[in-house]
Amino acid sequence: MASATLFTNVRPAGRAATDILVRDGRIVPAGEPAPAGAAVVDGGGALMLPGLVEAHTHLDKTLYGMGWYRNEVGPRLIDRIDNERTMKRTLGIDPARQSARQVVLSVGHGTTHIRSHVDVDTEVGLAGIEGVMATRERYRDIVDIEIVAFPQSGMLVRPGTVGLMADALRQGADVVGGLDPSGIDRDPKGHLDTVFGLADSFGKPIDIHLHEGGELGAFAVELTIERTKALGLQGRVTLSHAFCLGMPDVAAVDRLIEGLREAGIHIMTTGPASVDAPPVKRLAAAGVTICAGNDGIRDTWGPYGTGDMLERAMFVGMRNNLRRDDELQLALDICTHGGAAVMALDGYGIEAGCRADFVLVEAETVAEAVAGHPPRRLVVKGGRVVARDGRAMAEAP
Amino acid sequence: MASATLFTNVRPAGRAATDILVRDGRIVPAGEPAPAGAAVVDGGGALMLPGLVEAHTHLDKTLYGMGWYRNEVGPRLIDRIDNERTMKRTLGIDPARQSARQVVLSVGHGTTHIRSHVDVDTEVGLAGIEGVMATRERYRDIVDIEIVAFPQSGMLVRPGTVGLMADALRQGADVVGGLDPSGIDRDPKGHLDTVFGLADSFGKPIDIHLHEGGELGAFAVELTIERTKALGLQGRVTLSHAFCLGMPDVAAVDRLIEGLREAGIHIMTTGPASVDAPPVKRLAAAGVTICAGNDGIRDTWGPYGTGDMLERAMFVGMRNNLRRDDELQLALDICTHGGAAVMALDGYGIEAGCRADFVLVEAETVAEAVAGHPPRRLVVKGGRVVARDGRAMAEAP
Ligand SMILES: [Zn+2]
Ligand SMILES: [Zn+2]
Repeated sequence: MASATLFTNVRPAGRAATDILVRDGRIVPAGEPAPAGAAVVDGGGALMLPGLVEAHTHLDKTLYGMGWYRNEVGPRLIDRIDNERTMKRTLGIDPARQSARQVVLSVGHGTTHIRSHVDVDTEVGLAGIEGVMATRERYRDIVDIEIVAFPQSGMLVRPGTVGLMADALRQGADVVGGLDPSGIDRDPKGHLDTVFGLADSFGKPIDIHLHEGGELGAFAVELTIERTKALGLQGRVTLSHAFCLGMPDVAAVDRLIEGLREAGIHIMTTGPASVDAPPVKRLAAAGVTICAGNDGIRDTWGPYGTGDMLERAMFVGMRNNLRRDDELQLALDICTHGGAAVMALDGYGIEAGCRADFVLVEAETVAEAVAGHPPRRLVVKGGRVVARDGRAMAEAP
Repeated sequence: MASATLFTNVRPAGRAATDILVRDGRIVPAGEPAPAGAAVVDGGGALMLPGLVEAHTHLDKTLYGMGWYRNEVGPRLIDRIDNERTMKRTLGIDPARQSARQVVLSVGHGTTHIRSHVDVDTEVGLAGIEGVMATRERYRDIVDIEIVAFPQSGMLVRPGTVGLMADALRQGADVVGGLDPSGIDRDPKGHLDTVFGLADSFGKPIDIHLHEGGELGAFAVELTIERTKALGLQGRVTLSHAFCLGMPDVAAVDRLIEGLREAGIHIMTTGPASVDAPPVKRLAAAGVTICAGNDGIRDTWGPYGTGDMLERAMFVGMRNNLRRDDELQLALDICTHGGAAVMALDGYGIEAGCRADFVLVEAETVAEAVAGHPPRRLVVKGGRVVARDGRAMAEAP
């Protein structure tokens, strides 16, 4: 194929219509003429957005494409964790196959970068990590995948897990995961010391699931801030969910936000409708980087999820009562540049010189794209068209 | 066209595949043979659900189809009310045209019945009512529309409004509306006495917007319960939104729910993500009828909304943390039978003898239909196909 492509009649971030020349996978500065023989792709006047960043999902355990799973699971967190470990065997949830299915779904919706937590425990061992690594390799031309070694079933309470976490990091996991230091491991100090210890040993960033609410969650945030500063990991630590930042005590939340800002800790939110949630406007105003993710898509935990990060931007908007156009821009930024910052992506964006990872949407404005999340007209990765009209060209297993 | 149609290979409410014979607009008991010359429509094995009931929207003031409205409105409720009155003129929001556009959109998503609040105030007078009545007449074969005379800008604080409300009820409005008795009219007793007085005089049901939260909202609920019982209006009164039922004081909410049950008052929820919301599982367990609606779709209040009541069922599910299949069935029931009960629809359902108002969805189960809300394969109203593949056959202006 041509190494240069001209995408005609697109409106970058809603600005005036223009042509975008891509060469060798990068966006060329405006004004440079297209070389002879360059391919031409009609943008049809669509809105051009940077590639969507799925900054928190679980590729290894979606049930997408497996027939409907009738959910009859009990209400507690531990019910869901235990049920899932059982169902992995009973249903035959193959991490390579399932992650491939979700990747193809997500690329169709314009996702160009994914951070996936992948279960590491004493039953599955590294099978999840290996499966998602196979998918990462298979689809390396259409999406970038970052893998978090995730101790879903606890770390200290299940002897052997820490060793497996270390193995996962040696084999190719990029990020050290963690989970509810008090709620699951029953030992906030021990859990966080272990997570930060692994990060320090392997030189990896950290992403911790923190569902703990109220004061208990706030305590875990404080411990995370202390360790991030002590180890000089500013800019390398993410707290996912952080429901406690939505607790009613505004003054307490403000103190936590100030601590997060000082420690350069990022926040991931799904914009959850049924629980307290991090206040994205206050976080953004304070200078804290926020990203978003779809979390689990159609899994044993819950039935929801389409893999669409523009729909997720809408959920973040609805959860945070974002109505004005400038507020919906924030929701989009969280699902694009926020995720890119958290994943420390190089050359991300739609300016000259950036990698040509972008999405065309038939919407008049950014706000309309978020509120209506219409099917993507075109998805481009590294300068190549990888999806049209909501569907990736790549095959799923 | 044929007065009899056989819809082959459909799965009513997820049960085994069967054929459904419709004659003279009604579902015929199983086993009766199709008459010679009956039309045949292939259901393709799709899930068959009753027509979706949009039990709370504002047909007169959607901006759908008018180009993107850049929202720069202030944050208070009164900012939005005042801005909207101004924008009706500035933007030229024609109630007949706009309601027609939303109706066609909604029918495409499988809505067969709509309750619409329509503004009545001293600036627009009855123009909104007349516009929506014209739309009701125009689309009478594809959707049933019930009109609530709605004093959006207040009633007692804007002299002349009560007379206009009475005029609206004389001209064809079906329901008496009301709005935040303390917040807007600053007189909860006076406001509710007026609303119930109109209902009593005209023999009409009531549907009150109640955004007031916490104890203030609880007080309005109590006043509503008292008046409903005193006037014998059990089963004829709906409280829309009722955010106060989501306040943290569980015991207080239980007392309110018991009062609502006794008075036969219905609750409408949108499943709002950013505010307290009525707990649908507790309400349903107590025997309170719950319906749902999309509320405003792309209007000067906010940018969201597609008109899809299956998507709304998903929002209700997400807001109430419904994950199990039986819980998602509740979300669907709210958007179908709940709305039908609130609107006192005759012959609603998919059993033999019911009016042939139904929807075919390509989903394996009810839960999948709610969680995924895929485009509707077919929408049938009074036995006739009125929409295919998510789009109504009727033209919008
Ligand atoms: Zn997660
Ligand atoms: Zn309303």
